[in-house]
Amino acid sequence: MTLPESKDFSYLFSDETNARKPSPLKTCIHLFNDPNIIFLGGGLPLSDYFPWTQVTSKSPLPPFNKGIGAKLSDSETDTLTYTVERDSKAEDFDIPFSKSLQYGFTQGHPDLLNFLKEHTGLIHKMNYSDWDIILTTGNTNGWESTLRVFCNKGDVILAEAHSFSSSLASAEAQGITTFPIPIDEHGIIPEKLEEILDNWTPGAPKPKLLYTIPTGQNPTGTSLADERKVEIYRIACKHDFLIIEDEPYYFLQMGEYIADLDERKKVQDVPKPTHDQFLGSLAKTFLSVDTEGRVIRMDSFSKVLAPGSRLGWLTGSKKLLQPYISLHEMTVQAASGFTQSLVNGLLQRWGQDGYIDWLIGLRHEYTLKRDNAIDALYEYAPKHEAFKINPPIAGMFFTINIDASIHPEFETKFQSNPAMVEQYIYDKVVRSGVLVVPGAWFRTEGETNPPQPKESKQGGNANEIFFRGTYAAVSPEKLREGLKRLGDALHEEFQIAK
Amino acid sequence: MTLPESKDFSYLFSDETNARKPSPLKTCIHLFNDPNIIFLGGGLPLSDYFPWTQVTSKSPLPPFNKGIGAKLSDSETDTLTYTVERDSKAEDFDIPFSKSLQYGFTQGHPDLLNFLKEHTGLIHKMNYSDWDIILTTGNTNGWESTLRVFCNKGDVILAEAHSFSSSLASAEAQGITTFPIPIDEHGIIPEKLEEILDNWTPGAPKPKLLYTIPTGQNPTGTSLADERKVEIYRIACKHDFLIIEDEPYYFLQMGEYIADLDERKKVQDVPKPTHDQFLGSLAKTFLSVDTEGRVIRMDSFSKVLAPGSRLGWLTGSKKLLQPYISLHEMTVQAASGFTQSLVNGLLQRWGQDGYIDWLIGLRHEYTLKRDNAIDALYEYAPKHEAFKINPPIAGMFFTINIDASIHPEFETKFQSNPAMVEQYIYDKVVRSGVLVVPGAWFRTEGETNPPQPKESKQGGNANEIFFRGTYAAVSPEKLREGLKRLGDALHEEFQIAK
Repeated sequence: MTLPESKDFSYLFSDETNARKPSPLKTCIHLFNDPNIIFLGGGLPLSDYFPWTQVTSKSPLPPFNKGIGAKLSDSETDTLTYTVERDSKAEDFDIPFSKSLQYGFTQGHPDLLNFLKEHTGLIHKMNYSDWDIILTTGNTNGWESTLRVFCNKGDVILAEAHSFSSSLASAEAQGITTFPIPIDEHGIIPEKLEEILDNWTPGAPKPKLLYTIPTGQNPTGTSLADERKVEIYRIACKHDFLIIEDEPYYFLQMGEYIADLDERKKVQDVPKPTHDQFLGSLAKTFLSVDTEGRVIRMDSFSKVLAPGSRLGWLTGSKKLLQPYISLHEMTVQAASGFTQSLVNGLLQRWGQDGYIDWLIGLRHEYTLKRDNAIDALYEYAPKHEAFKINPPIAGMFFTINIDASIHPEFETKFQSNPAMVEQYIYDKVVRSGVLVVPGAWFRTEGETNPPQPKESKQGGNANEIFFRGTYAAVSPEKLREGLKRLGDALHEEFQIAK
Repeated sequence: MTLPESKDFSYLFSDETNARKPSPLKTCIHLFNDPNIIFLGGGLPLSDYFPWTQVTSKSPLPPFNKGIGAKLSDSETDTLTYTVERDSKAEDFDIPFSKSLQYGFTQGHPDLLNFLKEHTGLIHKMNYSDWDIILTTGNTNGWESTLRVFCNKGDVILAEAHSFSSSLASAEAQGITTFPIPIDEHGIIPEKLEEILDNWTPGAPKPKLLYTIPTGQNPTGTSLADERKVEIYRIACKHDFLIIEDEPYYFLQMGEYIADLDERKKVQDVPKPTHDQFLGSLAKTFLSVDTEGRVIRMDSFSKVLAPGSRLGWLTGSKKLLQPYISLHEMTVQAASGFTQSLVNGLLQRWGQDGYIDWLIGLRHEYTLKRDNAIDALYEYAPKHEAFKINPPIAGMFFTINIDASIHPEFETKFQSNPAMVEQYIYDKVVRSGVLVVPGAWFRTEGETNPPQPKESKQGGNANEIFFRGTYAAVSPEKLREGLKRLGDALHEEFQIAK
């Protein structure tokens, strides 16, 4: 079956993208590898002067039967030792440092791109032909570039009513207004989204894009239901905006929390899934729904391999990715060559199957962490209807919602202002020796510029506040202790007996 | 002696900088290392899941007596083998991957910052107290960030009349006008700069900054004379603009080209300089002239260690660097952790002295390359007054100026248009099997918005064109062959007998 080509959305490009001229130096760079040309065109140092002739890494070896975090025995059963040379290749797929530490390849080194493109095709069944990927230095970079590529000062974008504060702040600094979309425990509510857009003030600038974190959303921990993605995509076509799916937590899909330990054990005792079972269990993606090429997906190694790798990739239509490449030539230039050589060396040796093994192992670890956290929350948090624990099915975050109005001093000390309760509890909890962060830090603001939706954007109790915690960063023991401190502080503050 | 503090130039910040709110998450990040706090605040994965437990590098060992590009014998005399661990430190100064591959440290890892700050203090005698450095992912990133930090759409900046095309294009895309400053063989002409600014149209936006590549300028290969730096700094204070010195080629200061081989041999036979001699021989820098904190210097490892390291640093007053950190939190986040651990591991083991040895070795290599290139140019280029060879004293580039009007078909085929000759020669030279790039690619444009300076910005023959070549990228033999092809093509095209 021949897939259709993507549509042309270049009319959504920013003034900056339209004003960006291709560097004339890039018009001759293809001659660098022409054997008939002696290239005196660019200031490329000889690789003889790169002071790393060989780098050898020790890494875990698939299928990671003892767990992805298990201590390596240094034996052939669990330890992979691989070497990247400066001047030669141990394997055909290696990127020697003479290449990776040289200029060039803003899109990414071909060998690494090939691996990631194959992986991407495996996960998302693409519905148009001219899709591609480019490397980023992580989703922070990918998002900031997205704003530069598409948005002008004064433009409007859409985002979940609570969203990642750094992403929101990046838009705000650029003078872009973010309009919050109501969410519930399954993410964006398509009906609300459509209503907002159907009733958009005529003549007001319409949103160019929707920024969403569909899986294990930050900060709410919610995951967008599959059928909602189809609906939201339909609305995107109807109202002509792009969808930017920011998916750092995509592979941390732990599934439903099972409170009953016997039931949970039954699920845990099921043997490790096959690769087909694992791939089949993953949530639908906007990318896989996209027929027109109006979705740009941001994947990152930050949560899957290591944040400091500063490596991720964008997937979308070639037409939409081209201006990112032109922008990146003038910003990041390329992801670090050390990173590219070492990540490529590892992934290629693991193979697509080994990488899936890794992702299965990662999901397993986070399932244990999530269960441990939610068990402890149910154990230690006040057992009172004003406290609502939200067990996530994906990602790194749990939330606890609190009806601030039940605070004994709500009307007096806090003047019936839930935000004041929130800040007060945050400070108290920190003094108790545990840090969870207030939901208010993630509120999507800027809704004053476009027309207001008629209903509250929270869609719920106006006195409800929430706190976000993570089970990613500490050991199970510390996590339990932290949540006990949290529970104790809440009991005390709200004067609820244990 | 107590040094004074820098002045406050925050009134030069861009709207974007002023609108950028600090991320609330950053207000609690200091609690991450507080032993009394269980930190459930951020989505930081456990380092147990970083799949690199140990990375071992082979590198050259100071003092590099056989040359910095010499093949390593794998013996203790010339080979340094060092290991960075994930979970421990071989040396106190090492940055284990558990730290470098984790989130955090947008400014850079403290150990690496310490080394670079010490190095920077050694090279530039700073005249104010509150200076600091921050890491970048190279000067491309540093420059783009500079534009974002200081400039709004419609602002004006100054640059050499020919400058690095990518830097100019970056400004242009952002809607910033670059005003070209006349240059000669010693760089920017201070008198011209002052005249332009003294006669600036009243009410027109005044330039916020001067972008300059003082050493081995790209594309002209010229180096800004020391005494001119003092003058230009005085003018910067008078007309209140910042100076951004982009110095990737700073350590490639080969000194004057000596055509006479006997004379040259005398210089070559002088023993390797002491470190004090080397440091004393380096050009004055704007940073070392700066008393107010109005200079930001961009250093890069691209030409000194390897371009693909994507690592550099900015030096300037803390007040001016702070908004870069806030911007980088939303763009690059941090330089790659692999890069930081490996570069730090190498530099710390080399020590400040070993690194100076490396820079001395690098300068030696480029001196040989430069001499080889200029020798060949004098040998092969037409010996005719219309062809002017410009031997550089620093950097990677040579230029050859040509009076296009002596072309036999200048008035007929080329309609007395030197630009047409330039393009034609470029194409012909490429067909002859060598690539040098036309000076026109680097012309600083955008001078139509502010008032025109009265004299030609080139200050010379309006029919003069030039080509830029580099001796960095190929072996000496290939370079000679390339320059022979260039010379042959020019002889033929201009119908000059050999």
